[in-house]
Formats: sequence, C-alpha cells, structure tokens
Amino acid sequence: MRIAIDAMGGDFAPLAPVKGALLARERYPETELVLVGREDAIRGALREAGKTDLPAGITIRNASEVVEIADDPAKAFKKKPDSSLTVGLTMVKNGEADGFVSAGSTGALLAGATLVVKRIRGLRRAALAPTIPTATGRAVLLDCGANAECSVEYLLQFAYLGSYYAAKVLGVEKPRVGLLNIGAEEEKGDALRRETYQKLAEAHARGDLNFAGNVEAKEALLGACDVLVADGFSGNVMLKSVEGAGKLMSGMLKGMLLKNAGTKLAALLLKGGLREFKKTLDPNEVGGTALLGISKPVVKAHGSSNETAFCNAVRQAVEVARSGIADDIARDIDKMRLDRAGGEANAAL
Amino acid sequence: MRIAIDAMGGDFAPLAPVKGALLARERYPETELVLVGREDAIRGALREAGKTDLPAGITIRNASEVVEIADDPAKAFKKKPDSSLTVGLTMVKNGEADGFVSAGSTGALLAGATLVVKRIRGLRRAALAPTIPTATGRAVLLDCGANAECSVEYLLQFAYLGSYYAAKVLGVEKPRVGLLNIGAEEEKGDALRRETYQKLAEAHARGDLNFAGNVEAKEALLGACDVLVADGFSGNVMLKSVEGAGKLMSGMLKGMLLKNAGTKLAALLLKGGLREFKKTLDPNEVGGTALLGISKPVVKAHGSSNETAFCNAVRQAVEVARSGIADDIARDIDKMRLDRAGGEANAAL
Repeated sequence: MRIAIDAMGGDFAPLAPVKGALLARERYPETELVLVGREDAIRGALREAGKTDLPAGITIRNASEVVEIADDPAKAFKKKPDSSLTVGLTMVKNGEADGFVSAGSTGALLAGATLVVKRIRGLRRAALAPTIPTATGRAVLLDCGANAECSVEYLLQFAYLGSYYAAKVLGVEKPRVGLLNIGAEEEKGDALRRETYQKLAEAHARGDLNFAGNVEAKEALLGACDVLVADGFSGNVMLKSVEGAGKLMSGMLKGMLLKNAGTKLAALLLKGGLREFKKTLDPNEVGGTALLGISKPVVKAHGSSNETAFCNAVRQAVEVARSGIADDIARDIDKMRLDRAGGEANAAL
Repeated sequence: MRIAIDAMGGDFAPLAPVKGALLARERYPETELVLVGREDAIRGALREAGKTDLPAGITIRNASEVVEIADDPAKAFKKKPDSSLTVGLTMVKNGEADGFVSAGSTGALLAGATLVVKRIRGLRRAALAPTIPTATGRAVLLDCGANAECSVEYLLQFAYLGSYYAAKVLGVEKPRVGLLNIGAEEEKGDALRRETYQKLAEAHARGDLNFAGNVEAKEALLGACDVLVADGFSGNVMLKSVEGAGKLMSGMLKGMLLKNAGTKLAALLLKGGLREFKKTLDPNEVGGTALLGISKPVVKAHGSSNETAFCNAVRQAVEVARSGIADDIARDIDKMRLDRAGGEANAAL
C-alpha cells in the first residue's frame, strides 16, 4: 500500500505533512508514503523534524508548483500541471499510489480528483463526507459542501455512498441512513426532500438501504443515524454549526475554568475528562474528509491539520483503499440510478 | 398593554402558562394578561398554583377547543374556531389584546397568525425569528422553518425584518446583517444566495441595511453578525444543530463531572459558572420566537416552556408591541419589494 501526501497543502505545510508522514510510517509500517511537492522544501522540513536522511519507506516526488488559495479552484489543477495537487492525483490515477491525502484547497482537490482520478462510472457527483460526533459515536454527513445545489438522484447516490462507507470503512453493521430534514414526518421539508424520501423508502423496501426516515439535525447529533444525507448547502451549514457551537462552548468552558483559584483547582481535578472532551471535538483526531464517489481514495485533511491529523488521514486513505468500497459501488451502480432503480421498483409492483 | 396567553398550548399546559402569567404580573405589573382556554382547566391550574381567586390584572377568556399535534396545522385554526389559538389570535386582530403568546403547534400558530391577524401589507411571508447564542451575545436567525423554500424577495424581506427587530426590540445599533452561506466570498453558494447577495449589497449601498456579506454558520456563532438571513430549511438545520451540539456537549460535561469524587468536587467548585453556562443555552431564558412579518405581536414559546419561559415570552410580546416595528416596516415596505427596490436602484444608476 502506497499513499501520496500533498506536502505543500495546509496551514502548516510542509512541516506538518512531513511530520505526519514520519508518524504514519511509525504507526503503520506496512504503508509506504510519497511526499509530493518542492523537494528542497520537503528536505528542509525533514531536517527540521530531525531527519537528515530520507527514512525507509518514504520517497519524495518533486512538484515545482503550489496551488494557492487565490487560484480558481475549478482550474487550479489544470493551470498548474506541476503542482503537488496535480502530480499527486496523477500518481493515483496511474496506479503509482493507492490514495492521496491533501490539506490544500477543498475546491481544487475536488475538481482535480473529479477530472484527473475521475468519479466511479455512473455517479453524478462526488461528495464531501466528514464524520461528526454524536452522543453515541459518530455519523457520516454527506454532502458537506461539494454540491450546493442537488437533485433527488444526487441525494439518493449520497445515501448509498455513505452507507457503503459506514459499513465497509467504519465497520457499522447495517448503517441507519437518515435524510436531514426539518421534521420527522414524511411530508416535511421542500420538494427535494419529499421526493428523495420516496426514493430512499423504495430502496429500503428493496432491501438495498437501511433508511431511518427524516432526521432533524438535533436528533442526528443525539445518535439517530449512522449516515446523514444532505444537500451540500444544508450539510455544510450543519457541519459549521456544530464546529461553531463546539468552539463557542469550549470558550465558555475555558472562561469558567480560569475564573479564580477554586475553578482552576476544578480544572486540575477534571484534567483527564477535559482531555477526552477536547479530543471528541478535535478534527485532528478524526483524520480527514473522504471524497466519496471518486474511483480511488482521496482524503481532504483539515486546513489546520497537524502531524496527528495527517497521520490519521493517511490511515483513513489506507482504510478506504482496503475496503474495496469503490468496487462495490461500481458493481451496484444500477441501484443508484434513478432511471434504472425506478424501473425495477415499478416492475416489482 | 394587554397580552393574551394560550393557556392550552405546550407540554406543561395549563399549569406552566398559568404560572407564567402569575410571574409576569409580578415582574411587569403594568401588563394585563388574558388566559385563553378552557376556563375550568385554567381555574384548576390557578388553584394548583395556590390562587383561589383570579389575581388582579389577569382575566380568563373561555375557549372550549384545543389544537392538538394531530390536527393539520394549516387548517386547525379554522376547523376549531373556539380553540384557544383561534380565540387568542382573534382577540389580537380585534384589538382586545396587544399581542399573543402560545407554546402550541408552530405550524398552526403561523397559519393562524397569517390568516387571522394577517401579515404586514406587502410582505410575502412571515418568518420564525429566534435568537441564537453567540460568543459576543446573541443574533437573530431568520427564517428558521416557516418557509422551507424561499425566493430572493423573501430573503431580502427577512433581512429587513431581522434588522428592524434587532434595532428596535433588541436595541442593537446598526445591526450587522449576514447572509447564511457556505463561504464568505460573493460568488459562494447556490443561485438563491448569489442573487440575494446582490440585492442585499444594493440595499447596503442605499443605506437601508448594514449588510455584512456572506457569513458561515461557524462565524455567525462566533459573533460575526447580529442578524443572520437564511431560507427556512437551512436556518432550521442551523438552529437544531446548535441545540443538538449544546445537548451533546452538556451531556459530555455532565458525564465528566459525575465520574468520581474528585470530579464531583470540581463540579461544586464550578457551581456558579455551570449555572451561567446552562443559562446561556437554556431556551427558557430567551423567551420565545417572534413571528416577524405579522402585523401584530405573536410570539411562539418553546413547546417545553416552563413558567419562566412563558413570562419571558410575555415580556418579548410587550417589547415587540412597544417597539412599533410593525409600523416602521409598513412605512418602509417599498424598500423591501423587489419590483420597487429594483426600480429605484436602476433609476439611481
């Protein structure tokens, strides 16, 4: 297994991705890593991390360009053919790497992955599929911003993508698929939700999905489903709301703990618990966001990823590659297409 | 000032609204209250609250029917003309009360308010406008679920409604109006957001609104704006996400504090801070959700409202009535209409 890492992407590049690669080699010695980017910058970061020689199992693939935030995401990978992003994705396309991890621009990564590595045949769109914390564990939320406007077929396909991911990568048995909505009843929401509800219910009736019905954001966070299907706009609103609420409450908690000598003593007494608390909300612990629907593993690491985050994102790319989820989806693609699925359902009546 | 209270609405009716009325009379002695509902039930609740006689300033308006959750919200007010909901709203319409507070079905209240009390002339839709906690105070989020599908004009009108409410009722000077979006840049989001952005920017240029641009959910929670404009679907997703994340984190915090003797001691040391923490997230403290756009004050109290919540909702109805916001909106309605506002803007070019 060989994973390519974008050494130039993210707020702390190249040091964080380089250190992340070193950590991943320690933790997952069976995984080879390729650091993609400006060789001199990568070698400088390695020295900064205390490595004068390239450790065994890590190689460098030089790429002279860097995709910047100012670049047009839709065109960056094409305009900068020798960027770490384009070179890394091309390696995956050509089979020189089994997966790619980048903390660079989400839009550029998505556009590049779609046009270089390509979607699984028959899928209309790829989706950003991070996991969010819930009261009972975690849930996959997709789409989270790749597609601001969605059709019924997109949402139906996201349901399958999320379900396969939860089952094959996260190890959830019969993942409960919820449709993010503003009420639990079948008729709630807008036309998109009402039509999608019907399609998901049909898939459930056929035994193809374990559809748990409409799920409100609050209930999802309390553990009502394992996969939450959303258009990219409301999915992103939910993700950012959870992040914001977490930050808001952590700030309040911090203020409360630093108030006086008594509260500082309390903070000491709570040390272990506070660490757990922080860990649950820390995106670095999760790894990254899988780009589901792309034919090979591409993982978007958080922009502010540290070495732990890069290491976890590598683990995630390995898990996606091992799961064989892309093959499963390709095999079952007919179930996810509205023309065919609809036809079958009607034929079964 | 006289406020009518739906004595039959909410999880703890009639006791909670009756006790809320008693509390409101104590706190705001200049406000008269009318308890609307089944007289025997209301008198029973008064006795349970230790009042054998009807206190001064509180009257009862008998209404024999109750709108139930099972009733079709769109028709409930009409099908049950002698319900507490319909009678209360009719009192407001006829000037027998200056505002109405209900913890009953949101949908039925909204439909009833729209069709009995009526919208301010020229407004396309009324909006649910709760406030959400932020790192710097609170922000008005609208719409939050009344309108799952919105047009550019709806959103433009919500911006004005929220801005007037923040300025006149919450006392915010030049409220910063943000458009809930999935990125800060002008071109982010879907077609609805891009068009609405332009209209809000035009209103800003004319000096009619203080438009702060696109705001992500996370930044809104950290205090980026005073008014956050959303379609009812994504606004509701945001509201419920914040509620859910709050519940999730409170649960984690509780588990952490009850772990062992040491953490229980910590909980004691943090007592005051934890109370503040809980208060910030407690919907009962806020009062209710204003139905903005209705020509007279109608406040939706949380379904699980306790007496404090009802009392705060009464205060809120009084504040909305005193603010004169409905008159201001009626006066400035031309600014909020796309045909006219657009015409003016074009004429000014």
